Amino acid sequence: MAKQLVFGHQNPDTDAIAAAIAYAYLEKQKGYDTEAVALGEPNDETQYALKYFRTDAPRVVKTVSNEVDKVMLVDHNEPQQSAPDIDKVTVTHVIDHHRIQNFNTAQPLYYHAEPVGCVSTIIYEEYQMAGVEIPKNIAGLMASAIISDTLLLKSPTTTAKDRTALAALAQEAGIDPKKYGLTMLKAGTNIAGKPAAELVDEDAKSFEMNGQSVRIAQVNVVDLGDVKDRIDEFKDAMKQEAKKAHYDLFVTLVTNILDSNTEGIVVGATGAKDTFAKAFKTTLRNGTAQLPGVVSRKKQVVPPLTEAFGK
Amino acid sequence: MAKQLVFGHQNPDTDAIAAAIAYAYLEKQKGYDTEAVALGEPNDETQYALKYFRTDAPRVVKTVSNEVDKVMLVDHNEPQQSAPDIDKVTVTHVIDHHRIQNFNTAQPLYYHAEPVGCVSTIIYEEYQMAGVEIPKNIAGLMASAIISDTLLLKSPTTTAKDRTALAALAQEAGIDPKKYGLTMLKAGTNIAGKPAAELVDEDAKSFEMNGQSVRIAQVNVVDLGDVKDRIDEFKDAMKQEAKKAHYDLFVTLVTNILDSNTEGIVVGATGAKDTFAKAFKTTLRNGTAQLPGVVSRKKQVVPPLTEAFGK
Repeated sequence: MAKQLVFGHQNPDTDAIAAAIAYAYLEKQKGYDTEAVALGEPNDETQYALKYFRTDAPRVVKTVSNEVDKVMLVDHNEPQQSAPDIDKVTVTHVIDHHRIQNFNTAQPLYYHAEPVGCVSTIIYEEYQMAGVEIPKNIAGLMASAIISDTLLLKSPTTTAKDRTALAALAQEAGIDPKKYGLTMLKAGTNIAGKPAAELVDEDAKSFEMNGQSVRIAQVNVVDLGDVKDRIDEFKDAMKQEAKKAHYDLFVTLVTNILDSNTEGIVVGATGAKDTFAKAFKTTLRNGTAQLPGVVSRKKQVVPPLTEAFGK
Repeated sequence: MAKQLVFGHQNPDTDAIAAAIAYAYLEKQKGYDTEAVALGEPNDETQYALKYFRTDAPRVVKTVSNEVDKVMLVDHNEPQQSAPDIDKVTVTHVIDHHRIQNFNTAQPLYYHAEPVGCVSTIIYEEYQMAGVEIPKNIAGLMASAIISDTLLLKSPTTTAKDRTALAALAQEAGIDPKKYGLTMLKAGTNIAGKPAAELVDEDAKSFEMNGQSVRIAQVNVVDLGDVKDRIDEFKDAMKQEAKKAHYDLFVTLVTNILDSNTEGIVVGATGAKDTFAKAFKTTLRNGTAQLPGVVSRKKQVVPPLTEAFGK
């Protein structure tokens, strides 16, 4: 059987990396010749998890069609979040928990998506269905992914399935989810030493909304004060990036993982910024907006923004 | 919980009807307020199965947004095969075994697709996962759907999962799959009394291929001779329909269910007809082509035709 690459979205977060490793292992047990790879380097949080569970980071690839004809996607489906040459290969499997957009295939495929907090929760189900035992280090990475995506089960995206999966995986991996989780999340919030240009790209995704190109980045902190003095630096970095990549709107969500509040930093065309303000029934002050209780890009930001841009 | 409609594609076949009934029942056990409906009347084969298993045909609806805000789709995802007002409702669940095309959502959803012969095979898995017992009549309809979609496990779309599901469902329903199956399939092949216009619409689906509108109908027979004298009548009916609905290409696959051979009847623009001939490395004679061994629209016709039209 020809080799297949398994990977998550660009600017991978802990779920994108953990899910690729976990799904590649599972499908290998089923007879596929799989290799987990990544479309970027792991971030600080993911590096903490990989080191803790003594697992090598997946090989980083820039393109995929130079290596394989077929691929499996985890944690994404939208082409603009995938490998730049995704249209040149056949997608045979998708495990995801996002909306479906601009994802078209010529052939039937395996597609398992559920509106749950984390893809690793769905992959946990896949292991159960297949009756395959989860290696301890992979269980630890999957638990890390659930903790990361649901901010320790506090995000409104969290479902009963995520709770069940995290409890089982944490036991398997031998960790206390709260204690380990908070340390892991904090490992991803050290923004002091990093330039804004890097921070607004690390966990950023592109979306098409009614013909408009929208970029949404997310930065986790333990104190919103950490960015207060750096707003202009963030805005400058976002404006430069928006100009280069032709984004009509660029939003950075600075999320306090301890109290679940977010400050949105917004740059872009005036009309697009107005659309953002309308979507969240707020007004921008110096290009920023308080978004209390907002922690989920997928559930609390993308849908109202998509709606506001019109279908 | 607000009511949701569950339905298969337009011009429903046995799988579209059976899957809607089976999935609506399953999701009802999970707490959803579901009703199975259909986007058209059941065909002769499906009517035979419904009568045999003493089950009422689902209510036929023309539109859905006048009744509900949310729906579940079975056996299709492409909007042009769905309710005409599908864009006005939210799709929360999809169970399918086709390619994904032009299916876009604003929200994450439950999507379970597998490249197997029949959607009822996937729904059988869903029952297993949920630990819900399948009522005897529904098991019979699901078995009928697998027999119909795989032509008694002879289609190249057939997988090990279809075989396992059919064996289990047939036992549950108390039928001999071969004996019952052949009688059911034959019930759907009586074309003598029907006008061609009706036959080319009964099991027809629309596809968009690189901007071209392609209609592909399938008619099952037990003797290809049954249509030999009616080719012109078929072509006239197809031309009229193509003109009315602006199809660039209209193909009717007349399939002998006993020996698994197909005769294709093709009308449309010259360029589109040439593309068809190229896709199947054949030449059209009087607008017809022999397609030996071709029985599956999804696996043996749509992919090469999509490829030939270019991406």
